Amino acid sequence: MVGRQETRMQAVDDVSASFPTTSRNRVRRLHERGSYDHAAVFSVLDAGLLCHVAYTFDGQPYCTPTIHWREGDRLYWHGSSASRMLRQLRGGTPACLTVSHLDGLVLARSGFNHSANYRSAMCFGTARIIDEPGAKLKALAGVVDRFYPGRSETLRPISAQEAKATTVIGMRIEEASAKVRAKGVGDDEEDYGHPVWAGVIPVRTVIGAAEPCPRLLPGIERPGNLAGYAEGERLDAALTEAQLAYEGGL
Amino acid sequence: MVGRQETRMQAVDDVSASFPTTSRNRVRRLHERGSYDHAAVFSVLDAGLLCHVAYTFDGQPYCTPTIHWREGDRLYWHGSSASRMLRQLRGGTPACLTVSHLDGLVLARSGFNHSANYRSAMCFGTARIIDEPGAKLKALAGVVDRFYPGRSETLRPISAQEAKATTVIGMRIEEASAKVRAKGVGDDEEDYGHPVWAGVIPVRTVIGAAEPCPRLLPGIERPGNLAGYAEGERLDAALTEAQLAYEGGL
Repeated sequence: MVGRQETRMQAVDDVSASFPTTSRNRVRRLHERGSYDHAAVFSVLDAGLLCHVAYTFDGQPYCTPTIHWREGDRLYWHGSSASRMLRQLRGGTPACLTVSHLDGLVLARSGFNHSANYRSAMCFGTARIIDEPGAKLKALAGVVDRFYPGRSETLRPISAQEAKATTVIGMRIEEASAKVRAKGVGDDEEDYGHPVWAGVIPVRTVIGAAEPCPRLLPGIERPGNLAGYAEGERLDAALTEAQLAYEGGL
Repeated sequence: MVGRQETRMQAVDDVSASFPTTSRNRVRRLHERGSYDHAAVFSVLDAGLLCHVAYTFDGQPYCTPTIHWREGDRLYWHGSSASRMLRQLRGGTPACLTVSHLDGLVLARSGFNHSANYRSAMCFGTARIIDEPGAKLKALAGVVDRFYPGRSETLRPISAQEAKATTVIGMRIEEASAKVRAKGVGDDEEDYGHPVWAGVIPVRTVIGAAEPCPRLLPGIERPGNLAGYAEGERLDAALTEAQLAYEGGL
């Protein structure tokens, strides 16, 4: 078992690298679906905007939904401003950030073999509030540009009061695992003769027709940096593309 | 502040009722988006199949994605079989189960007013393994029938070995809150003159064309209880409809 101090020393700038496997991130159930590769973990993280973060305060776990973004092996997210929680985040607190995508319902011939197709990534580390003004302003531009590359410079600047009212939390990924199921029905051999419908019902998250703000100035068109968010496109593909454009511009 | 012992005594079989508000579930950030009504919380829970559960083991929070289902004020989910965790669940452990739906990206004229449309519900209680054989078999049929009403009786029965290999966790919702944002861009009044595109890019999770198992017996048609999962339909609507049918049959 690798201790936490040792894992902190691991270099993670090699994209072909893997996260260390410890008792914290080892995939135990259906471990053949698991991976510790950076590429596998990052691809799940980058395909999503919504994550869930687990923290513990006074022995009570909280599972908080929020928006996350990634720069290298660092994750950022907007914090719940519940002040009691924030005080503990200031000194750093263990956290687990998870992103999951549902890809399909799997209907088998037995209850036991019913399943879902999905992609998920669990990331472990120490969550800390980003307090330093320069790092915070960079992160506040990052959350816009990571989803809509180049957009932050087209907006009016962030005010000091807004920066103060926003909580940004950062976490270096110390350990992580990705888990994927992407296949058809897996029934027991003796069950294939059972006369019931079985199959996969795919599920995908797609983009709808944009609803422009009714108060848009005349002549303002939708900019090219939103081209990936076209009606009918998959959200995961648009978010992945935006991340690549963002990383290219860093 | 209402203590945990008091909240346990609260009756929750009145669908017009609300969950108690305590320091644990009070919505702190943007509290005008929050609700403690059973109906509001249940509607978010019932519209989803995928949830995230936060537990704490040895001081480390875990945010685990899984499939949940609901009967009244009780939530059930499949457990991670990580044995170290399961031992602690046997005696009951504080947990927080959250379901979130992303409904749109909100692009404003300032970084600060960028947002997302979403529906989320956070539920607090004590998670326990369902060990008693009768309750466990009922729950294992429930997870099939809640999503596909009436399906469990068309499958071959669950074997004793399968029941043993499956971990079902249950939790009575002691406290909960729902949070919803469902509106257009909310810019500061002085920003509406800023010349940048702003608007909402809606997002929805939809059902694709079913992929029947290649080994279906000849003549087996897709049954009527899957009619709600038709291509192009919204997953949240299909899941909500299935829950209503399931509750009607209980």
